[in-house]
Amino acid sequence: MGSAPDSLPARLLNGDRRALSRLMTQVESGTETGRAALQALYAHTGRARTIGLTGSSGAGKSTIGNELAKALRRRNQTVGIVAVDPSSPFTQGAILGDRVRMQELTADPEIFVRSLATRGAVGGLAQAALDVIALLDAFGKDVILIETVGAGQDEVEIAGAAQTTVLILAPGMGDDIQTMKAGIMEIADVFAVNKGDLPGADIVAAQLKALLSIGTERSWEPPIVRLVGTKGEGVAALADACQDHYAYLQGAGRLEAAERGRIRGQILALARHRILTGLVQHAGGQDGLEALVDAVVARTMTPHTAVDAWISEWTQG
Amino acid sequence: MGSAPDSLPARLLNGDRRALSRLMTQVESGTETGRAALQALYAHTGRARTIGLTGSSGAGKSTIGNELAKALRRRNQTVGIVAVDPSSPFTQGAILGDRVRMQELTADPEIFVRSLATRGAVGGLAQAALDVIALLDAFGKDVILIETVGAGQDEVEIAGAAQTTVLILAPGMGDDIQTMKAGIMEIADVFAVNKGDLPGADIVAAQLKALLSIGTERSWEPPIVRLVGTKGEGVAALADACQDHYAYLQGAGRLEAAERGRIRGQILALARHRILTGLVQHAGGQDGLEALVDAVVARTMTPHTAVDAWISEWTQG
Repeated sequence: MGSAPDSLPARLLNGDRRALSRLMTQVESGTETGRAALQALYAHTGRARTIGLTGSSGAGKSTIGNELAKALRRRNQTVGIVAVDPSSPFTQGAILGDRVRMQELTADPEIFVRSLATRGAVGGLAQAALDVIALLDAFGKDVILIETVGAGQDEVEIAGAAQTTVLILAPGMGDDIQTMKAGIMEIADVFAVNKGDLPGADIVAAQLKALLSIGTERSWEPPIVRLVGTKGEGVAALADACQDHYAYLQGAGRLEAAERGRIRGQILALARHRILTGLVQHAGGQDGLEALVDAVVARTMTPHTAVDAWISEWTQG
Repeated sequence: MGSAPDSLPARLLNGDRRALSRLMTQVESGTETGRAALQALYAHTGRARTIGLTGSSGAGKSTIGNELAKALRRRNQTVGIVAVDPSSPFTQGAILGDRVRMQELTADPEIFVRSLATRGAVGGLAQAALDVIALLDAFGKDVILIETVGAGQDEVEIAGAAQTTVLILAPGMGDDIQTMKAGIMEIADVFAVNKGDLPGADIVAAQLKALLSIGTERSWEPPIVRLVGTKGEGVAALADACQDHYAYLQGAGRLEAAERGRIRGQILALARHRILTGLVQHAGGQDGLEALVDAVVARTMTPHTAVDAWISEWTQG
């Protein structure tokens, strides 16, 4: 789109992995360069299949992600992996190095791995993840795997960005009905019971089956796939289940409807984020906000009336 | 504040529990009556101590909440309990009835219990919880206990609304370092290890101690309290620990700083929520949003440029 032939977007379209990597850093940091590149590349997106892998840490997400990537490669598909790692102050630095993973993936140049760290800003991480996915899509990856822990708003948002969401469970993880995070069960299209050789796997699978039998009638029945990720067992069946779900989506305009839903969600999330930044800048920057806080602390305003005054001034003044 | 003597706010200030309960329903539903009542009552808030109780379901939050309420009553303090229950489509109807809990609490009229169900709207639940807390505060409760599961954005926001946050752990819940939700460990002021008579309790306490020794130096060292909630064992020690933390907050202006932080967060969350509603209404309602979605689906706009156009029109037009 009018980019110079040696520009980063042009190089990305030519299959330059370094250009892809550098643009990822730009969109992650929210720079103008990143924004401009996304705009130049956006017409090339919308082709990749996306599969979300979510589940507690310890359930085996990255193991299954790696094995699934290899299985897809055996089916001649190119793969991008976006791994969202929660990093709390207590676990700082625990982000699995992309290079280590690349090695595990036998340095296959058709697999590209990128880790994103959880950052402070709510909405910021989800947005960065979606932009990174768009870059991989424009780069021409056939399938993009999106790994998230699935806790927290951001991650549910990211998991929801995939066409197919796989919830990975494992025995002994406390992943029973009691501790399951609300909202995660509902978005799963495929259930993967990992560590299928452990004694508790039968119970997990039985619990799942019981749960799924309760719900209202669905046009898609989420399959339950048992795996031993570390041995690669069951991974082909998982790839099949994802393929089946994709075939299902292709029917009756579901793929298009789901894409609309994802884009709508992304626009709303972006707007929320952007507006709040604009609002704080408008209201005399941080000082203006602090003046409102003062008024509420003094009980001369409620939080509601403070926000009313703030917003009406911005949009009308 | 100019309310008629028989208005709901006036009756609430006179200690009428029915008025309190009815106004809670109003603020939960976000009605004008609720908003007006909050405004009338807001000058009477800011006196209650607030204690958040968070932890996985099964860790014993409501048991400990009940026992802590009784312990506080023995210390002559009146108590409000706000219990936030996650209700996913799979667990619908699982909300613990307030009446059942009231019975467990021996129908003590100085303890008021309110359950809030997790609702669809992000931000909506947190806001409703804060408004309900404000009503209990205006009603004159000395201490308000806020129970949340602590998963998800809303609940972290709600847990953060308390002056003192207690993280409740229990052996065998998968609540080890691996599965701990990011962000929860950091906001805990007191750690409660429930089911202290089970064999695994020593391990949980040891893991906690090890974790706490890693972090940077703190001006407050979170104590670890062991309990057997079902027998009421350790609950007095928990009440003491919360009291100690409150005494700590009273030093060096920390209480005021924390209140400012909470109010700032509430204003920003409210603004985010409110603005998005305003934006959708402004942009030709849902149709305007769908036109933007169309443009992004057709790849003639990126989500970023769509949002830019939308917002600048609203704030400048």
